[in-house]
Amino acid sequence: MEPAKGRPRDTRIDEAVLRATRELISEEGFSATTIQAVARRAGVSAPAIYRRWRSRLDLIMTATAVDLDEESFTPTGDLYVDVKRFVDTYQHQFSRPTFVALPGVLGESANAPDDVSDVVQRLAQGVRPAFRAMLAAASPAVDPDVNPDTVLDVIIGACLYRAAIHPFTGRVAKADDITDLIVRSLRRVP
Amino acid sequence: MEPAKGRPRDTRIDEAVLRATRELISEEGFSATTIQAVARRAGVSAPAIYRRWRSRLDLIMTATAVDLDEESFTPTGDLYVDVKRFVDTYQHQFSRPTFVALPGVLGESANAPDDVSDVVQRLAQGVRPAFRAMLAAASPAVDPDVNPDTVLDVIIGACLYRAAIHPFTGRVAKADDITDLIVRSLRRVP
Repeated sequence: MEPAKGRPRDTRIDEAVLRATRELISEEGFSATTIQAVARRAGVSAPAIYRRWRSRLDLIMTATAVDLDEESFTPTGDLYVDVKRFVDTYQHQFSRPTFVALPGVLGESANAPDDVSDVVQRLAQGVRPAFRAMLAAASPAVDPDVNPDTVLDVIIGACLYRAAIHPFTGRVAKADDITDLIVRSLRRVP
Repeated sequence: MEPAKGRPRDTRIDEAVLRATRELISEEGFSATTIQAVARRAGVSAPAIYRRWRSRLDLIMTATAVDLDEESFTPTGDLYVDVKRFVDTYQHQFSRPTFVALPGVLGESANAPDDVSDVVQRLAQGVRPAFRAMLAAASPAVDPDVNPDTVLDVIIGACLYRAAIHPFTGRVAKADDITDLIVRSLRRVP
Protein backbone atom coordinates (compact mmCIF):
# COMPACT_ATOMS: atom_id res chain seq x y z
CA MET A 1 0.00 0.00 0.00
CA GLU A 2 1.33 3.39 -0.94
CA PRO A 3 1.66 5.98 1.80
CA ALA A 4 -0.98 8.66 1.24
CA LYS A 5 1.08 11.43 -0.40
CA GLY A 6 3.63 11.53 2.43
CA ARG A 7 0.93 12.53 4.92
CA PRO A 8 0.05 10.95 8.31
CA ARG A 9 2.65 8.47 9.49
CA ASP A 10 3.05 9.21 13.17
CA THR A 11 -0.26 10.84 14.08
CA ARG A 12 1.22 12.16 17.34
CA ILE A 13 3.43 14.45 15.25
CA ASP A 14 0.44 15.56 13.17
CA GLU A 15 -1.54 16.38 16.29
CA ALA A 16 1.33 18.20 17.98
CA VAL A 17 1.92 20.31 14.87
CA LEU A 18 -1.77 21.17 14.43
CA ARG A 19 -2.11 22.06 18.11
CA ALA A 20 1.02 24.25 18.01
CA THR A 21 -0.34 25.98 14.90
CA ARG A 22 -3.69 26.73 16.55
CA GLU A 23 -1.98 28.02 19.70
CA LEU A 24 0.38 30.28 17.75
CA ILE A 25 -2.45 31.72 15.67
CA SER A 26 -4.61 32.39 18.72
CA GLU A 27 -1.77 33.90 20.74
CA GLU A 28 0.39 35.67 18.18
CA GLY A 29 -1.59 35.98 14.96
CA PHE A 30 -1.19 34.87 11.39
CA SER A 31 2.13 36.43 10.39
CA ALA A 32 3.93 35.03 13.45
CA THR A 33 2.71 31.53 12.65
CA THR A 34 5.63 30.46 10.48
CA ILE A 35 6.77 26.89 9.85
CA GLN A 36 9.86 27.60 11.98
CA ALA A 37 7.79 28.90 14.90
CA VAL A 38 5.40 25.94 14.69
CA ALA A 39 8.30 23.48 14.51
CA ARG A 40 9.90 25.04 17.58
CA ARG A 41 6.70 24.96 19.61
CA ALA A 42 5.75 21.44 18.56
CA GLY A 43 9.28 20.15 19.10
CA VAL A 44 9.62 18.76 15.58
CA SER A 45 11.79 19.65 12.59
CA ALA A 46 10.65 21.92 9.76
CA PRO A 47 11.18 19.11 7.20
CA ALA A 48 8.84 16.89 9.26
CA ILE A 49 6.17 19.55 8.76
CA TYR A 50 6.87 19.95 5.04
CA ARG A 51 6.55 16.19 4.59
CA ARG A 52 2.97 16.48 5.89
CA TRP A 53 1.68 19.77 4.48
CA ARG A 54 2.61 21.29 1.18
CA SER A 55 2.92 24.85 2.48
CA ARG A 56 2.47 27.11 5.47
CA LEU A 57 -0.96 28.09 4.13
CA ASP A 58 -1.97 24.44 3.75
CA LEU A 59 -0.94 23.76 7.36
CA ILE A 60 -2.78 26.82 8.70
CA MET A 61 -5.92 25.99 6.75
CA THR A 62 -5.92 22.41 7.99
CA ALA A 63 -5.40 23.52 11.58
CA THR A 64 -8.20 26.10 11.46
CA ALA A 65 -10.63 24.34 9.15
CA VAL A 66 -14.20 25.50 9.33
CA ASP A 67 -16.28 22.66 10.67
CA LEU A 68 -19.82 22.95 9.38
CA ASP A 69 -22.20 20.24 10.45
CA GLU A 70 -24.37 19.82 7.39
CA GLU A 71 -26.75 17.55 9.31
CA SER A 72 -27.92 20.52 11.32
CA PHE A 73 -29.17 22.20 8.15
CA THR A 74 -32.17 19.93 7.62
CA PRO A 75 -35.03 22.39 7.01
CA THR A 76 -37.84 22.79 9.55
CA GLY A 77 -39.99 24.72 7.07
CA ASP A 78 -40.02 27.75 9.39
CA LEU A 79 -38.10 30.34 7.38
CA TYR A 80 -36.93 32.41 10.36
CA VAL A 81 -35.72 29.41 12.34
CA ASP A 82 -33.93 27.96 9.33
CA VAL A 83 -32.20 31.20 8.27
CA LYS A 84 -31.16 31.83 11.88
CA ARG A 85 -29.47 28.44 11.96
CA PHE A 86 -27.22 29.34 9.05
CA VAL A 87 -26.47 32.76 10.53
CA ASP A 88 -25.70 31.23 13.95
CA THR A 89 -23.45 28.61 12.39
CA TYR A 90 -21.32 31.19 10.60
CA GLN A 91 -21.23 33.51 13.60
CA HIS A 92 -20.03 30.59 15.71
CA GLN A 93 -17.34 29.62 13.20
CA PHE A 94 -16.07 33.18 12.99
CA SER A 95 -15.93 33.63 16.76
CA ARG A 96 -13.45 30.78 17.32
CA PRO A 97 -10.02 31.95 18.52
CA THR A 98 -8.37 30.62 15.35
CA PHE A 99 -10.66 32.77 13.22
CA VAL A 100 -7.95 35.44 13.11
CA ALA A 101 -6.17 33.21 10.58
CA LEU A 102 -8.88 33.52 7.95
CA PRO A 103 -8.17 37.13 6.96
CA GLY A 104 -4.47 36.27 6.79
CA VAL A 105 -5.18 33.28 4.57
CA LEU A 106 -7.28 35.43 2.26
CA GLY A 107 -4.60 38.12 2.29
CA GLU A 108 -2.03 35.66 0.98
CA SER A 109 -4.50 34.17 -1.42
CA ALA A 110 -3.34 36.11 -4.49
CA ASN A 111 -0.09 34.17 -4.33
CA ALA A 112 -1.54 30.73 -3.71
CA PRO A 113 -4.93 30.39 -5.34
CA ASP A 114 -4.86 26.58 -5.27
CA ASP A 115 -4.19 26.45 -1.55
CA VAL A 116 -7.13 28.74 -0.93
CA SER A 117 -9.78 27.09 -3.05
CA ASP A 118 -10.08 24.30 -0.45
CA VAL A 119 -10.92 26.70 2.34
CA VAL A 120 -13.46 28.46 0.14
CA GLN A 121 -14.97 25.13 -0.74
CA ARG A 122 -15.43 24.34 2.94
CA LEU A 123 -16.69 27.81 3.83
CA ALA A 124 -19.47 28.22 1.32
CA GLN A 125 -19.63 25.99 -1.74
CA GLY A 126 -20.36 22.84 0.28
CA VAL A 127 -23.22 24.57 2.09
CA ARG A 128 -25.00 25.86 -1.03
CA PRO A 129 -27.10 22.73 -1.70
CA ALA A 130 -28.41 22.71 1.91
CA PHE A 131 -29.18 26.42 1.69
CA ARG A 132 -31.07 26.03 -1.58
CA ALA A 133 -33.03 23.09 -0.12
CA MET A 134 -33.95 25.16 2.91
CA LEU A 135 -35.31 28.02 0.78
CA ALA A 136 -37.22 25.56 -1.39
CA ALA A 137 -38.79 23.99 1.73
CA ALA A 138 -39.99 27.44 2.82
CA SER A 139 -40.98 28.34 -0.74
CA PRO A 140 -44.53 29.66 -0.27
CA ALA A 141 -43.09 32.45 1.89
CA VAL A 142 -40.05 33.16 -0.29
CA ASP A 143 -40.01 35.47 -3.29
CA PRO A 144 -39.18 33.35 -6.35
CA ASP A 145 -36.89 36.09 -7.69
CA VAL A 146 -34.44 35.53 -4.84
CA ASN A 147 -31.05 34.09 -5.81
CA PRO A 148 -30.10 31.64 -3.02
CA ASP A 149 -26.37 31.94 -3.75
CA THR A 150 -26.45 35.70 -3.30
CA VAL A 151 -28.33 35.33 -0.02
CA LEU A 152 -25.79 32.85 1.34
CA ASP A 153 -22.91 35.11 0.21
CA VAL A 154 -24.50 38.01 2.06
CA ILE A 155 -25.01 35.95 5.22
CA ILE A 156 -21.39 34.78 5.24
CA GLY A 157 -20.07 38.26 4.43
CA ALA A 158 -22.17 39.89 7.15
CA CYS A 159 -21.04 37.38 9.79
CA LEU A 160 -17.42 37.65 8.65
CA TYR A 161 -17.41 41.42 8.75
CA ARG A 162 -19.07 41.55 12.12
CA ALA A 163 -16.57 39.09 13.62
CA ALA A 164 -13.62 40.93 12.12
CA ILE A 165 -14.71 44.49 12.78
CA HIS A 166 -16.90 44.71 15.83
CA PRO A 167 -14.08 44.24 18.34
CA PHE A 168 -12.73 47.61 17.15
CA THR A 169 -15.88 49.67 17.01
CA GLY A 170 -17.15 49.15 20.53
CA ARG A 171 -20.60 48.71 19.00
CA VAL A 172 -22.87 46.07 20.39
CA ALA A 173 -25.34 44.69 17.89
CA LYS A 174 -28.40 42.57 18.43
CA ALA A 175 -27.55 38.93 17.85
CA ASP A 176 -30.44 38.34 15.47
CA ASP A 177 -30.41 41.49 13.38
CA ILE A 178 -28.63 39.79 10.47
CA THR A 179 -31.31 37.09 10.49
CA ASP A 180 -34.04 39.77 10.58
CA LEU A 181 -32.56 41.58 7.59
CA ILE A 182 -32.18 38.40 5.55
CA VAL A 183 -35.71 37.17 6.28
CA ARG A 184 -37.07 40.60 5.34
CA SER A 185 -35.20 40.45 2.03
CA LEU A 186 -36.76 37.05 1.25
CA ARG A 187 -40.39 38.02 1.79
CA ARG A 188 -42.80 37.63 -1.05
CA VAL A 189 -44.44 41.02 -1.44
CA PRO A 190 -47.88 41.21 -3.05
CA MET B 1 6.68 75.77 14.53
CA GLU B 2 7.01 72.21 15.78
CA PRO B 3 7.51 69.44 13.25
CA ALA B 4 4.29 67.42 13.05
CA LYS B 5 5.16 64.37 15.17
CA GLY B 6 8.24 63.47 13.15
CA ARG B 7 6.10 62.92 10.03
CA PRO B 8 6.50 64.57 6.59
CA ARG B 9 9.83 66.32 6.22
CA ASP B 10 10.98 65.37 2.74
CA THR B 11 7.72 64.48 1.02
CA ARG B 12 9.64 62.75 -1.79
CA ILE B 13 10.67 60.12 0.74
CA ASP B 14 7.09 59.77 1.96
CA GLU B 15 5.84 59.31 -1.57
CA ALA B 16 8.56 56.83 -2.51
CA VAL B 17 7.83 54.75 0.59
CA LEU B 18 4.06 54.76 0.06
CA ARG B 19 4.47 53.84 -3.61
CA ALA B 20 6.89 51.01 -2.76
CA THR B 21 4.42 49.74 -0.15
CA ARG B 22 1.54 49.69 -2.61
CA GLU B 23 3.65 47.94 -5.25
CA LEU B 24 4.87 45.28 -2.84
CA ILE B 25 1.35 44.59 -1.56
CA SER B 26 -0.07 44.32 -5.08
CA GLU B 27 2.78 42.15 -6.35
CA GLU B 28 3.77 40.02 -3.38
CA GLY B 29 1.03 40.26 -0.78
CA PHE B 30 0.73 41.39 2.80
CA SER B 31 3.25 39.14 4.57
CA ALA B 32 6.04 40.01 2.11
CA THR B 33 5.49 43.72 2.67
CA THR B 34 7.93 44.18 5.54
CA ILE B 35 9.63 47.41 6.54
CA GLN B 36 12.93 45.96 5.24
CA ALA B 37 11.42 45.07 1.87
CA VAL B 38 9.79 48.48 1.53
CA ALA B 39 13.04 50.25 2.49
CA ARG B 40 14.97 48.25 -0.09
CA ARG B 41 12.49 48.98 -2.86
CA ALA B 42 12.12 52.67 -2.01
CA GLY B 43 15.88 53.13 -1.63
CA VAL B 44 15.62 54.51 1.92
CA SER B 45 16.69 53.26 5.34
CA ALA B 46 14.39 51.41 7.72
CA PRO B 47 14.88 54.13 10.39
CA ALA B 48 13.70 56.73 7.86
CA ILE B 49 10.46 54.75 7.61
CA TYR B 50 10.09 54.33 11.37
CA ARG B 51 10.51 58.10 11.81
CA ARG B 52 7.42 58.58 9.63
CA TRP B 53 5.10 55.68 10.58
CA ARG B 54 4.78 54.11 13.98
CA SER B 55 4.62 50.53 12.73
CA ARG B 56 4.44 48.33 9.66
CA LEU B 57 0.65 48.19 10.07
CA ASP B 58 0.44 51.98 10.26
CA LEU B 59 2.48 52.28 7.04
CA ILE B 60 0.39 49.67 5.21
CA MET B 61 -2.87 51.25 6.33
CA THR B 62 -1.75 54.70 5.21
CA ALA B 63 -0.61 53.38 1.82
CA THR B 64 -3.86 51.50 1.17
CA ALA B 65 -6.33 53.82 2.85
CA VAL B 66 -9.90 53.49 1.75
CA ASP B 67 -10.86 56.68 0.02
CA LEU B 68 -14.59 57.24 0.36
CA ASP B 69 -15.93 60.39 -1.21
CA GLU B 70 -18.66 61.41 1.21
CA GLU B 71 -19.88 64.11 -1.18
CA SER B 72 -21.13 61.42 -3.53
CA PHE B 73 -23.49 60.15 -0.83
CA THR B 74 -25.92 63.08 -1.02
CA PRO B 75 -29.32 61.35 -1.22
CA THR B 76 -31.39 61.52 -4.41
CA GLY B 77 -34.50 60.22 -2.63
CA ASP B 78 -34.61 57.21 -4.96
CA LEU B 79 -33.93 54.31 -2.61
CA TYR B 80 -32.56 51.94 -5.24
CA VAL B 81 -30.22 54.53 -6.76
CA ASP B 82 -28.97 55.61 -3.35
CA VAL B 83 -28.38 52.09 -1.97
CA LYS B 84 -26.61 51.13 -5.22
CA ARG B 85 -24.21 54.04 -4.75
CA PHE B 86 -23.05 52.73 -1.40
CA VAL B 87 -22.76 49.17 -2.75
CA ASP B 88 -20.81 50.38 -5.80
CA THR B 89 -18.49 52.46 -3.64
CA TYR B 90 -17.55 49.53 -1.45
CA GLN B 91 -17.24 47.16 -4.41
CA HIS B 92 -14.90 49.66 -6.04
CA GLN B 93 -12.79 50.06 -2.90
CA PHE B 94 -12.47 46.32 -2.48
CA SER B 95 -11.48 45.75 -6.11
CA ARG B 96 -8.36 47.93 -5.94
CA PRO B 97 -5.09 45.98 -6.25
CA THR B 98 -4.06 47.00 -2.74
CA PHE B 99 -7.25 45.48 -1.32
CA VAL B 100 -5.32 42.30 -0.59
CA ALA B 101 -3.80 44.16 2.36
CA LEU B 102 -7.08 44.55 4.22
CA PRO B 103 -7.49 40.91 5.25
CA GLY B 104 -3.86 40.92 6.38
CA VAL B 105 -4.40 44.05 8.42
CA LEU B 106 -7.45 42.51 10.06
CA GLY B 107 -5.53 39.28 10.63
CA GLU B 108 -2.90 41.14 12.62
CA SER B 109 -5.48 43.21 14.38
CA ALA B 110 -5.58 41.17 17.57
CA ASN B 111 -2.04 42.32 18.28
CA ALA B 112 -2.48 45.98 17.42
CA PRO B 113 -6.02 47.13 18.15
CA ASP B 114 -5.07 50.82 18.20
CA ASP B 115 -3.48 50.68 14.77
CA VAL B 116 -6.60 49.07 13.38
CA SER B 117 -9.26 51.35 14.81
CA ASP B 118 -8.24 54.03 12.29
CA VAL B 119 -8.88 51.79 9.33
CA VAL B 120 -12.21 50.71 10.77
CA GLN B 121 -13.10 54.34 11.33
CA ARG B 122 -12.43 55.09 7.66
CA LEU B 123 -14.17 51.98 6.39
CA ALA B 124 -17.52 52.28 8.10
CA GLN B 125 -17.95 54.58 11.07
CA GLY B 126 -17.38 57.75 9.03
CA VAL B 127 -20.00 56.65 6.50
CA ARG B 128 -22.76 55.90 9.02
CA PRO B 129 -24.20 59.44 9.21
CA ALA B 130 -24.49 59.66 5.40
CA PHE B 131 -26.11 56.24 5.29
CA ARG B 132 -28.64 57.17 7.98
CA ALA B 133 -29.43 60.42 6.16
CA MET B 134 -29.98 58.54 2.92
CA LEU B 135 -32.46 56.13 4.55
CA ALA B 136 -34.26 59.02 6.22
CA ALA B 137 -34.57 60.83 2.86
CA ALA B 138 -36.20 57.71 1.38
CA SER B 139 -38.27 57.15 4.53
CA PRO B 140 -41.76 56.68 3.13
CA ALA B 141 -40.49 53.58 1.32
CA VAL B 142 -38.38 52.26 4.20
CA ASP B 143 -39.66 50.09 7.01
CA PRO B 144 -39.19 52.06 10.26
CA ASP B 145 -38.00 48.91 12.07
CA VAL B 146 -34.84 48.81 9.97
CA ASN B 147 -31.57 49.44 11.81
CA PRO B 148 -29.39 51.52 9.45
CA ASP B 149 -26.15 50.39 11.11
CA THR B 150 -26.98 46.73 10.53
CA VAL B 151 -27.82 47.42 6.90
CA LEU B 152 -24.49 49.21 6.31
CA ASP B 153 -22.61 46.38 8.08
CA VAL B 154 -24.30 43.87 5.79
CA ILE B 155 -23.48 45.91 2.67
CA ILE B 156 -19.81 46.20 3.61
CA GLY B 157 -19.59 42.54 4.62
CA ALA B 158 -21.24 41.36 1.41
CA CYS B 159 -18.92 43.47 -0.77
CA LEU B 160 -15.87 42.40 1.23
CA TYR B 161 -16.72 38.72 1.02
CA ARG B 162 -17.43 38.89 -2.68
CA ALA B 163 -14.14 40.66 -3.40
CA ALA B 164 -12.17 38.23 -1.25
CA ILE B 165 -13.86 35.01 -2.27
CA HIS B 166 -15.19 35.21 -5.78
CA PRO B 167 -11.78 34.94 -7.46
CA PHE B 168 -11.59 31.40 -6.07
CA THR B 169 -15.08 30.12 -6.79
CA GLY B 170 -15.24 30.79 -10.51
CA ARG B 171 -18.76 32.09 -9.90
CA VAL B 172 -19.92 35.15 -11.74
CA ALA B 173 -22.57 37.11 -9.91
CA LYS B 174 -24.82 39.87 -11.18
CA ALA B 175 -23.30 43.23 -10.29
CA ASP B 176 -26.50 44.54 -8.71
CA ASP B 177 -27.73 41.52 -6.78
CA ILE B 178 -26.42 42.84 -3.47
CA THR B 179 -28.31 46.10 -4.07
CA ASP B 180 -31.46 44.12 -4.96
CA LEU B 181 -31.25 42.11 -1.74
CA ILE B 182 -30.70 45.17 0.44
CA VAL B 183 -33.54 47.15 -1.14
CA ARG B 184 -35.84 44.16 -0.69
CA SER B 185 -34.92 43.98 2.99
CA LEU B 186 -35.79 47.67 3.44
CA ARG B 187 -39.28 47.56 1.94
CA ARG B 188 -42.17 48.60 4.07
CA VAL B 189 -44.60 45.69 3.91
CA PRO B 190 -48.27 46.41 4.52
